Amino acid sequence: MTPVLNVDKPALRRIARGGAVLGSGGGGDPHIGRLMAEQELGDDKTVSVVSLDDLPDDALILPIAMMGAPHVMLERFPAGNEIPALVATMEKLMGREVSAILCIEAGGLNSVIPFIAAAQLDLPIIDGDAMGRAFPELQMVTFTLAGLNATPMAMYDDKGNGATFDTVSNQWTERLARALTIEMGGAAMVGLYPVIAGEIRDCLIKGSLSLAHRIGDLIETYGGQATETLASSLGGTMLFHGRVRDVERRLEGAFAKGSVKIEGQGDFRGRNVVLGFQNEFLSAEEDGRMLATTPDLITLIDANTGAPVPTDTVKYGLSVKVLGLPCDPIWRSDEGLAIVGPRYFGIDVDYTPLDVA
Amino acid sequence: MTPVLNVDKPALRRIARGGAVLGSGGGGDPHIGRLMAEQELGDDKTVSVVSLDDLPDDALILPIAMMGAPHVMLERFPAGNEIPALVATMEKLMGREVSAILCIEAGGLNSVIPFIAAAQLDLPIIDGDAMGRAFPELQMVTFTLAGLNATPMAMYDDKGNGATFDTVSNQWTERLARALTIEMGGAAMVGLYPVIAGEIRDCLIKGSLSLAHRIGDLIETYGGQATETLASSLGGTMLFHGRVRDVERRLEGAFAKGSVKIEGQGDFRGRNVVLGFQNEFLSAEEDGRMLATTPDLITLIDANTGAPVPTDTVKYGLSVKVLGLPCDPIWRSDEGLAIVGPRYFGIDVDYTPLDVA
Repeated sequence: MTPVLNVDKPALRRIARGGAVLGSGGGGDPHIGRLMAEQELGDDKTVSVVSLDDLPDDALILPIAMMGAPHVMLERFPAGNEIPALVATMEKLMGREVSAILCIEAGGLNSVIPFIAAAQLDLPIIDGDAMGRAFPELQMVTFTLAGLNATPMAMYDDKGNGATFDTVSNQWTERLARALTIEMGGAAMVGLYPVIAGEIRDCLIKGSLSLAHRIGDLIETYGGQATETLASSLGGTMLFHGRVRDVERRLEGAFAKGSVKIEGQGDFRGRNVVLGFQNEFLSAEEDGRMLATTPDLITLIDANTGAPVPTDTVKYGLSVKVLGLPCDPIWRSDEGLAIVGPRYFGIDVDYTPLDVA
Repeated sequence: MTPVLNVDKPALRRIARGGAVLGSGGGGDPHIGRLMAEQELGDDKTVSVVSLDDLPDDALILPIAMMGAPHVMLERFPAGNEIPALVATMEKLMGREVSAILCIEAGGLNSVIPFIAAAQLDLPIIDGDAMGRAFPELQMVTFTLAGLNATPMAMYDDKGNGATFDTVSNQWTERLARALTIEMGGAAMVGLYPVIAGEIRDCLIKGSLSLAHRIGDLIETYGGQATETLASSLGGTMLFHGRVRDVERRLEGAFAKGSVKIEGQGDFRGRNVVLGFQNEFLSAEEDGRMLATTPDLITLIDANTGAPVPTDTVKYGLSVKVLGLPCDPIWRSDEGLAIVGPRYFGIDVDYTPLDVA
């Protein structure tokens, strides 16, 4: 296997920046995961990112992710035994050894968490994911559309408590695992959707990690001007540029919901947009007209530094650019829109693909 | 193996009555479990209750119980697949076949639930349990005192959702399993504390099911006069006889807490006692003096019929007898009192063994 990338600390930093862009404002801060993964990498170690094409059909691939609130995990750094315990549990349940790690969610924190597992276990990571972005619930993956099961799933907390699930639907896995994550203190490491290479060749979103790396590279190079470059080179569009004039936030259930009002600057002077969010940005609206909605990506970028701005820290007065990126085509199917389209999140509009003309 | 008892429907009814007495006012209504077990027994089948002494040291014994709110289980009768799924999961985790079923809690609903498993799987039940009564939390068993683990534990709901646990303490098993039971809709079937015969010879409370059967038999025979007979033949005492004058109930967390005031009748005229409860009756107090406290059993019995009266249905005006029964001696150790003594439940007195002189 010739790796697509050999990920050392600087490469990991670029992937974390790219993961923040693909997070669409949510999914947790990838730099938290980066700090953990850097401990595992040390100064010399690298993790190989490989193509799915290079794995035989029967190779067992295990997605590793963090479930819950990232800030909890930051306050109580993982004990280090969670991932080996997860992998041992899953190998026992599946009756075979894990050949590679997978990133289930290339946006946000979980773009980087799998690198901890890969570094600890000396395993490669597949260049791909099952969202192409961040989504808030674990059934919101292309694997669900392909009829694959989230279970057997395993989870471990930092105290050493573990659980496994065997459920009748991926929605039930989400419900049960969410309840247990809360009881475990708000955060846990999880292994879920164990798959063999042969069954995900058509439903894996390919190239996600090398894409994240490329995005991070462009931000490092272009800084405050990265948005325009990202839009043109990734087939997206710069939806807006302006200053944050109002942020409204509320907690509904486990979700942070709210909106951000932006007043146009430069070419956008005299116009106003409102971004709606539920963990991730879900809609960009101008005078009752939708500029973009989920599942397309809406990412807010600091106009001065090029750094992505998450929904949970965006502040009054910040000058921002709004980047729209097309989602993976699989999400634009009726089945895809049913689980991640605007109506699922209570936004009463039909989905219209992002206009990148 | 010569069975201690062959349990058919009439014998099951006696065990359910006895289980209600051993429930100390709580543990759920055994007759709910009896209805389910009767379906499995049909008209011809019996379940063998056997002595632990008849099992070889390496025989795997699996306690089966219901966790959560009994009334939920009654509204949504178990689908029937829960127990086979539980047993298959535990056999896989333990790497061997189950030889016998165990009753973890001889008081309340769980005195009868294991008979469903035994009837479904054609397995014997051990004549014993790990509480000698009912307690509200799963770590409150003699197995915890003996250093045995509640995990691996498995649970299944009526929809087919399952989970397993691997925890750092039996208290953590309680917390996690309780949270998941709530998310599963309020009730689940569980298999926990899988043990081999050799490791529980000193910590099993022996004879619990034949005791429950004998209690049920005495109630059938003596009706309203059963309390006196139970007291004398079980080494207990009739603590009080009177009329319920007040019932106070409140919900605190997952627990029903409250008190029952009883005004003396007959020999007890002119005296008053107050029973305190948290699911189970925990204390019987007369003018600031404790007549009995947990872990000794305090059971309220309808003075007219001999039927045990649970904390959740006791009503104003009922004529009742209060039966005190000594707990198993293991609970009177410092270690035992630490997990089930009065102070654990917030009752600020030292434990004094029930006076049966």
